Amino acid sequence: MRIGVLTAGGDCPGLNAVIRSVVHRAVTHYGDEVLGFEDGYAGLLDGRYRPLDLNAVSGILSRGGTILGSSRLERDKFRAACENAKQLAEEIGFDVLIPIGGEGTLTAARMLSDAGLPVVGVPKTIDNDISSTDRTFGFDTAVGVATEAIDRLKTTAESHQRVMVVEVMGRHAGWIALESGMAGGAHGICLPERPFDPADLVTMVEERFARGKKFAVVCVAEGAHPAEGTMDYGKGEIDQFGHERFLGIGTALAHELEHRLGKEARPVILGHVQRGGTPTAYDRVLATRFGWHAVEAAHRAEYGKMTSLRGTDITMVPLKDAITELKTVPKDRMDEAESVF
Amino acid sequence: MRIGVLTAGGDCPGLNAVIRSVVHRAVTHYGDEVLGFEDGYAGLLDGRYRPLDLNAVSGILSRGGTILGSSRLERDKFRAACENAKQLAEEIGFDVLIPIGGEGTLTAARMLSDAGLPVVGVPKTIDNDISSTDRTFGFDTAVGVATEAIDRLKTTAESHQRVMVVEVMGRHAGWIALESGMAGGAHGICLPERPFDPADLVTMVEERFARGKKFAVVCVAEGAHPAEGTMDYGKGEIDQFGHERFLGIGTALAHELEHRLGKEARPVILGHVQRGGTPTAYDRVLATRFGWHAVEAAHRAEYGKMTSLRGTDITMVPLKDAITELKTVPKDRMDEAESVF
Amino acid sequence: MRIGVLTAGGDCPGLNAVIRSVVHRAVTHYGDEVLGFEDGYAGLLDGRYRPLDLNAVSGILSRGGTILGSSRLERDKFRAACENAKQLAEEIGFDVLIPIGGEGTLTAARMLSDAGLPVVGVPKTIDNDISSTDRTFGFDTAVGVATEAIDRLKTTAESHQRVMVVEVMGRHAGWIALESGMAGGAHGICLPERPFDPADLVTMVEERFARGKKFAVVCVAEGAHPAEGTMDYGKGEIDQFGHERFLGIGTALAHELEHRLGKEARPVILGHVQRGGTPTAYDRVLATRFGWHAVEAAHRAEYGKMTSLRGTDITMVPLKDAITELKTVPKDRMDEAESVF
Amino acid sequence: MRIGVLTAGGDCPGLNAVIRSVVHRAVTHYGDEVLGFEDGYAGLLDGRYRPLDLNAVSGILSRGGTILGSSRLERDKFRAACENAKQLAEEIGFDVLIPIGGEGTLTAARMLSDAGLPVVGVPKTIDNDISSTDRTFGFDTAVGVATEAIDRLKTTAESHQRVMVVEVMGRHAGWIALESGMAGGAHGICLPERPFDPADLVTMVEERFARGKKFAVVCVAEGAHPAEGTMDYGKGEIDQFGHERFLGIGTALAHELEHRLGKEARPVILGHVQRGGTPTAYDRVLATRFGWHAVEAAHRAEYGKMTSLRGTDITMVPLKDAITELKTVPKDRMDEAESVF
Repeated sequence: MRIGVLTAGGDCPGLNAVIRSVVHRAVTHYGDEVLGFEDGYAGLLDGRYRPLDLNAVSGILSRGGTILGSSRLERDKFRAACENAKQLAEEIGFDVLIPIGGEGTLTAARMLSDAGLPVVGVPKTIDNDISSTDRTFGFDTAVGVATEAIDRLKTTAESHQRVMVVEVMGRHAGWIALESGMAGGAHGICLPERPFDPADLVTMVEERFARGKKFAVVCVAEGAHPAEGTMDYGKGEIDQFGHERFLGIGTALAHELEHRLGKEARPVILGHVQRGGTPTAYDRVLATRFGWHAVEAAHRAEYGKMTSLRGTDITMVPLKDAITELKTVPKDRMDEAESVF
Repeated sequence: MRIGVLTAGGDCPGLNAVIRSVVHRAVTHYGDEVLGFEDGYAGLLDGRYRPLDLNAVSGILSRGGTILGSSRLERDKFRAACENAKQLAEEIGFDVLIPIGGEGTLTAARMLSDAGLPVVGVPKTIDNDISSTDRTFGFDTAVGVATEAIDRLKTTAESHQRVMVVEVMGRHAGWIALESGMAGGAHGICLPERPFDPADLVTMVEERFARGKKFAVVCVAEGAHPAEGTMDYGKGEIDQFGHERFLGIGTALAHELEHRLGKEARPVILGHVQRGGTPTAYDRVLATRFGWHAVEAAHRAEYGKMTSLRGTDITMVPLKDAITELKTVPKDRMDEAESVF
Repeated sequence: MRIGVLTAGGDCPGLNAVIRSVVHRAVTHYGDEVLGFEDGYAGLLDGRYRPLDLNAVSGILSRGGTILGSSRLERDKFRAACENAKQLAEEIGFDVLIPIGGEGTLTAARMLSDAGLPVVGVPKTIDNDISSTDRTFGFDTAVGVATEAIDRLKTTAESHQRVMVVEVMGRHAGWIALESGMAGGAHGICLPERPFDPADLVTMVEERFARGKKFAVVCVAEGAHPAEGTMDYGKGEIDQFGHERFLGIGTALAHELEHRLGKEARPVILGHVQRGGTPTAYDRVLATRFGWHAVEAAHRAEYGKMTSLRGTDITMVPLKDAITELKTVPKDRMDEAESVF
Repeated sequence: MRIGVLTAGGDCPGLNAVIRSVVHRAVTHYGDEVLGFEDGYAGLLDGRYRPLDLNAVSGILSRGGTILGSSRLERDKFRAACENAKQLAEEIGFDVLIPIGGEGTLTAARMLSDAGLPVVGVPKTIDNDISSTDRTFGFDTAVGVATEAIDRLKTTAESHQRVMVVEVMGRHAGWIALESGMAGGAHGICLPERPFDPADLVTMVEERFARGKKFAVVCVAEGAHPAEGTMDYGKGEIDQFGHERFLGIGTALAHELEHRLGKEARPVILGHVQRGGTPTAYDRVLATRFGWHAVEAAHRAEYGKMTSLRGTDITMVPLKDAITELKTVPKDRMDEAESVF
């Protein structure tokens, strides 16, 4: 069998572990050939690929990023290509495609599948917001990086009687903020799922100071926003080219709290640091299992599906179920955190 | 409500996070009092405890060990105490006991429960071998420590064309060896669940050397053992007091491989390093959730049960189901690893 | 002997290690008493202190922040107090003061010393910019945090063909940017010591892309600035209260490079994460040695001096020499980095 | 200029950083060619090498081990080769050799130099025991790994009222034990430089328990040994092939303390974990500077010397001075640790 593999969308620790696992299982167990398309779907459409043997994936298990590169999907070009998907596969010469990526990637995967191309997807979302799997790889690493940052900031906050506002990833779902906030013991957590009222945070900080705990840490998802009418964002920054740029909810909230509390409040924006670098053991194991099961599914001709973690098992779920709904943080998970939301 | 809490059995990262979570939920939400028994059941039997308020658990979320101490159960003394369990609770003055511990601790918890004491258990096993929960806290940290060690050893092995044998925890179940072996990319993994044949490892190493990969890493659970007749253990060491001490399967296997291969093979025994120190974010979140749900169960008077992770949910399972069966590594999990077993 | 100790100025990993070391040496070896003044010089002026015995410093060696707290110096109040420095010491009852802090703290220490108070200083600057010592504690930890961030960002930059601009600490001296830039293999490094020209960075990035290395990382000290006329900063951000806030050189430079290159360039501002958390082994050893030698100097009545690392030795240097000159990065240290400056 | 580079002796984090730095400086600044000899001097003698350009060293800065491999010196073969050293260089076609290694490697380097080959050495000793340089790369990483292990073990020791004995590297010099012992806050430190008396450790532990600190950590260099007549080593282990193997001072001491104290004492042998993996930022900077200065020295034709750190400067010292004397831990450095030695 000839298997094509590609990675698309944003960076995520564990992508290389999936690639390696696909190659190991396919080559060692089945004697397959594996083609790695470069820069996501772009490489597929342009026929840019390289053969991936055991040596090509040697040493990448613990490396961040993706050896295959990634790129944004050009939708029109892609749509056109879909019509000739089967022909494309014949020309390049592969039997099944394993795309590794997030919602956009999997939607594209489904289109290819609908167009008749044998596809087995592997879900990737650092935000952990795909509903048809318990967890995705990369998330644990991101939570780990954010938690270590909160650990570090706490000692500074405490020594200087300060409020620290940490902005973490999570545009539509607040899982990283929730879990790193819980793991780091943040006193306030702001999620996209529940508009926050800065007044609640002010009360929390004042109560802490009143009982002698003269610092506080607030963990904010980048997609969190204040309840209507509770806080003004300001005009954002004007950069050197006259463009207005939104300064981010973490920065805005730190300014707001400093203003309302009359105490120092400092933002820390973790940004891309959460996306890169060595994956945790958890993410390497999950990514390896996903890759392995994708190859198995390919050999069982179980197409149009993607790998999924359910409890401790890896199962296959239809691509069409995978991308209908965003998995957001439910209320009972917030309750468990004993923080102000 | 007055809640007693204790930690028993071996050390495990996340114990403090459970204690903290119990106190936070009980004190902040319910206005309960929490008593921390010292040194496990010993403190319960002797009535040694201290009140745990928010200040008492400040800063312990990220700390290894247990602020309450632990000790081995004295079975006879404990059995006698069981008969007066309800009286003991009345004398000390608590309404429910939350024991945090492994198989022995939970068996004892069930005896207390059978004797009429309201009990809500929290399972703890660094080996992840309790069957009635998907995962237990501490395991992820141990796997992380072991994986980092394998990462480090690989570069040394490669530079010096050596075989490294890493012995990790896991007396009866090989989960730590399996997952750290997968995460670290070990070329051989030896588990208690499947007796190994050193000849298979020899073949694997020789094949690697033959194709230019002049090193190998084998990850061995401390409870792994060779298939009958495949390897002699030797007599063990004689210490300075004339006692014979078993030198451990990792060391024995390294000697065996060195002898058979005629190449350098070195053992590394990770030992207690896996048990201590700062828990990973994953373990802190799981431990915090367990503590929170234990308090909830206590307030629902859902006694004789313990917390359990199923998928992404925390549920309560009867103590009697918790301790019947060891959760061991099944064959299909070994298959996923593409290593020699 | 009764020894007073205080920590002043910004947070720095290793402060607790100094305090612990002072207490260990003074109490164990000399049978001294140690008083810990709270919140820096404020605690000294207000007579707020607590006794520090072995138990008080137990477990703090690896903890970030300072158990004594810190605060900004109120200059007028301090000046007034200086006149009665000796009287103050008599009232509170201590024989020698060990202030741990940066340039401001040591200047104040010198004033107290000039006013007749026995003082032994311990230098603290996370920026490593005090000229009379080879290194200061905290610096190694900050460089480590920044380097790990660069390591993580590199994989992301590479996978997405991006330019990443990392802003690290260093207002007047660029040591953190230099060393983390070298350790992380940054392709451009911008220091306060040498105004940079964005055009040089543009050339470097284009040359890299031309030879197939389609990413670049630039490490910028927060105090770095462009050579006159080479780049416009823009107006900064306008926050929700109408205040203009400078958006930081890292962000401005990322915007500039994105504009000039026509490629994605993203800023990452590490901020306070560099200041907090567990110190590295290097910093713990250095801090411990400083504390030990400060006590020795006190017992030799070697006042008006501070501890200093010279080569591998700890020596004592006069406070007046310590604070005259900022230690900046010399040209030959930049040469060693093989990066664009 | 054509520069040959090789790595010899034991593994040490930072070797790749030196290689990368040599290539970067030589190729980018001077337009040199660099040849990498494989497996140490063996590759030189056999003429096995590969060209090292910028791509060949891409991404290795943070990687442990050595991309060039290493091997033990075959003395006789080497001696014979020395006589034709100049001829060898002519045949292979290189102008100067940069060997990176420890005492043996540098002794060999001196022999080559005496035989007329232009040589610039770079010192490497993870034990930090070369007297003509303040520090060597790799040492900081090893101390960091050992310190993290002690941090982890402390929580376990405390929770279980145990004595932990950690054996770290250091055959002839105890620097790793000294610095990781100080950084980890070990209560006893045993060095090769000073024979220890187990009775002193027993007294220390008993005093700790008496004042309520019911645990202790002892850090032992692998080369430490008891004072004559204070402790019997036992017979060592008998392995499965009937060979006697010394069980190591850490294990022997743990048994001894357990026997004398009547308390649990457990050995942890860190072993090869200290040698491998990602170097710390400190080691990467030092290694990079060594590599850079080696190339500069080559271009100044400053042969027969090696790089050396003195204070904050890199200087060149004659190879003949480098290898005369082992740098051991002096008494005053032990005094600073406030531990039992």
